[in-house]
Amino acid sequence: MSSLKIGICGLGTVGSGVVNIFNAHHGLIQQRCNNDLELLHVGARRDNSDCDTSDYRVSRDIFEVVRDPEVDVVVELIGGTTVARDLVTQAIEAGKHVVTANKALIAEFGNELIALAERAQVALRFEAAVAGGIPIIKVLRESLAANVVSGVAGIINGTGNFILTEMAHEGRSFEDVLAEAQALGYAEADPTFDIDGTDAAHKLVILASLAFGIPLDANAAVTEGIDTVTPEDLDFAKELGFSVKHLGIARRSGDALDLRVHPTLIPINRQIARVDGVLNAIMVEADSVGEIVLTGPGAGSLPTASSVCGDLMDLGRVLNHSLVDPTPTLGVPSDQLQTLPLIPRHEVAGVWYLRLVVEDRPGVMAEISGLLSARGISIEQLVQRPPAEGSSHVTVVILTDAVMCGHLDSAILDIETLPALSGSVVRLRVESFKEA
Amino acid sequence: MSSLKIGICGLGTVGSGVVNIFNAHHGLIQQRCNNDLELLHVGARRDNSDCDTSDYRVSRDIFEVVRDPEVDVVVELIGGTTVARDLVTQAIEAGKHVVTANKALIAEFGNELIALAERAQVALRFEAAVAGGIPIIKVLRESLAANVVSGVAGIINGTGNFILTEMAHEGRSFEDVLAEAQALGYAEADPTFDIDGTDAAHKLVILASLAFGIPLDANAAVTEGIDTVTPEDLDFAKELGFSVKHLGIARRSGDALDLRVHPTLIPINRQIARVDGVLNAIMVEADSVGEIVLTGPGAGSLPTASSVCGDLMDLGRVLNHSLVDPTPTLGVPSDQLQTLPLIPRHEVAGVWYLRLVVEDRPGVMAEISGLLSARGISIEQLVQRPPAEGSSHVTVVILTDAVMCGHLDSAILDIETLPALSGSVVRLRVESFKEA
Repeated sequence: MSSLKIGICGLGTVGSGVVNIFNAHHGLIQQRCNNDLELLHVGARRDNSDCDTSDYRVSRDIFEVVRDPEVDVVVELIGGTTVARDLVTQAIEAGKHVVTANKALIAEFGNELIALAERAQVALRFEAAVAGGIPIIKVLRESLAANVVSGVAGIINGTGNFILTEMAHEGRSFEDVLAEAQALGYAEADPTFDIDGTDAAHKLVILASLAFGIPLDANAAVTEGIDTVTPEDLDFAKELGFSVKHLGIARRSGDALDLRVHPTLIPINRQIARVDGVLNAIMVEADSVGEIVLTGPGAGSLPTASSVCGDLMDLGRVLNHSLVDPTPTLGVPSDQLQTLPLIPRHEVAGVWYLRLVVEDRPGVMAEISGLLSARGISIEQLVQRPPAEGSSHVTVVILTDAVMCGHLDSAILDIETLPALSGSVVRLRVESFKEA
Repeated sequence: MSSLKIGICGLGTVGSGVVNIFNAHHGLIQQRCNNDLELLHVGARRDNSDCDTSDYRVSRDIFEVVRDPEVDVVVELIGGTTVARDLVTQAIEAGKHVVTANKALIAEFGNELIALAERAQVALRFEAAVAGGIPIIKVLRESLAANVVSGVAGIINGTGNFILTEMAHEGRSFEDVLAEAQALGYAEADPTFDIDGTDAAHKLVILASLAFGIPLDANAAVTEGIDTVTPEDLDFAKELGFSVKHLGIARRSGDALDLRVHPTLIPINRQIARVDGVLNAIMVEADSVGEIVLTGPGAGSLPTASSVCGDLMDLGRVLNHSLVDPTPTLGVPSDQLQTLPLIPRHEVAGVWYLRLVVEDRPGVMAEISGLLSARGISIEQLVQRPPAEGSSHVTVVILTDAVMCGHLDSAILDIETLPALSGSVVRLRVESFKEA
């Protein structure tokens, strides 16, 4: 093949970034992929004034791009999982390679799309689907291919990290920062998936699939959002020497997997505890390499487009010499992926931060520590704030030792029966990560 | 090609790591490169009790590996540039692909070896030559291929970073820590290249070549080692809010390059300032992605072997479908590399840390600031330590504003004529790096 022709579907934040990179760096792209990699066709319902498409075929119906017989690679950047799924399916069935930035599509329908692509002998790539400009997909799939990965953990939702950072450092409220994140274009108009952890869960599932050679399962991760984190918890965390970050964590323990997405207290001296704002960071722990950490912009037009273009240039180079993409989408052919059982949530051991408001009278703390102790839970650290002027209640924060989640559930149910308790017990996970 | 057969030359730290990975992960490697990637032949003057070679052909003459007609890929892990150069040259001329971890060989003889490999249509890969287990070569060459890189900077010598970290955090002497680094196997028996900056300069030159598309030039970087850094400077730096790290810095400024390797004061709030011990970290600044940072083990048997195996598995996958490696060694074919002029050392602008010991009497500081001012240099910050009991001299530390290096040279010559000065002026560079 002497020239690989590209059709882009979607001209939003990422699509316009890809067009801008092709406009600015056409010569560089040709030189570096040793081929004629040509942007031919752009499909979008409307123009985007952030980029100039006058050098390209433009269609208002994105399916025109898929039907264009000259297009060899379809770049799906429309988002969502309904039309996008049809579009990618039709592209693959038409024998076209596909590059996408769509984590929801890959997490939810990746298994069927990858199998389809393998049968059609076309490539399906999605570097931009996880962590924006950070090339974590390729690093896991290729650079670390000789490693057995034991864990992947990271800040993989830039919007959530931006919100937590602003709340912690500036003392601002959740609603206030969310409004700013939307104004800045970090958060979607509907930020539900950023806030409730779904977006991070999609990305974690993709990382876990690559890291452990397992099929994609969009619902595999225990998922908690950032909306439960209060300024008060951020303050206490700081006082105790922790940052609060929204993490995705995928760990292999024997032949079972622990997949979780939740706000997490991390000791402030750990590198990832100081990754602030819209930055993403991903730690990989693997048997030969040990630990490596990648940090960079997790979102944004040009960083995400950089990853899309990296995929396109890979295909440009490789398909100049070979009829098929030699690199399986998930590192191994999809029929060799192996399901691993998930460790049930209640069997996952971990350290916890508990915050409770109790009556300020002798004996209450003894009752609480007694109930924890009865479930085999020790208190590692305890902080009590003096009662506010005129209040008969104090706030108590407890760090537990490592405890099975199910035991903690029971202890909290016990504590919540105490008349001395006001409201319910707030709980957040603590992860120390071992020092590299 | 149905099976790619590997011959390893050298069974030291890295060679034994590669053998150990193949012994432990043979099945995984086969699965992930969709091919029979087979370790066939090991050449080493003597056995290494750290690894079991009983499944392989073993030769005491490493050139037997090159002469083995069944070997498709020669892995050069003997180090040095004399025999290694002959070995790699003969391997390429025999039509064999080459993977190496040898930064000195690539920095000094890379241009001729790459041209040779291109003519012979064989691959030449060296992920392990820079930053051990961190896949920075592949990230620059492939993942960020759509970017124009403006700068690469990092901690790229683990031994040097280990020594500076121990000196700064534990207050130990240079000689003491060096001896420990040798005992731990971080430093070579002859640690000259780790100490004097040559090793970091080799790696920087390789990174710059990939980042900017320029030919390799082993002597291009202004190079200073870590042996000039005293515990006193580490103390002052800490007091002023800086870490001292040995950095390699490659920056493009218009059509000229600034390449430097030297101890550097970095504000402690920057991520790279807190990369301690034998860890390496590399920051890449590029037009689309912005800034990404990769951190990980910069040395060690298995981390470095992880990178060697990553290269081998890339070749295993790609050469199963294609007769040639589609990825040019330095990102573009070597005849398309373009030399860029180096900015002369005296024209590089930067902030400096100066330490001087002067007579403790009125008027001395006025003289010094007058001489700096006469060369257009302003003092941004000044710290003076009270004289030691019974001493007539005080130590003064100055942070300058951004100043052309040549102007500072002149000012220091002026200051060194002052009778009030005791000894010479100590100078270290300061780099703030812009916040990402």
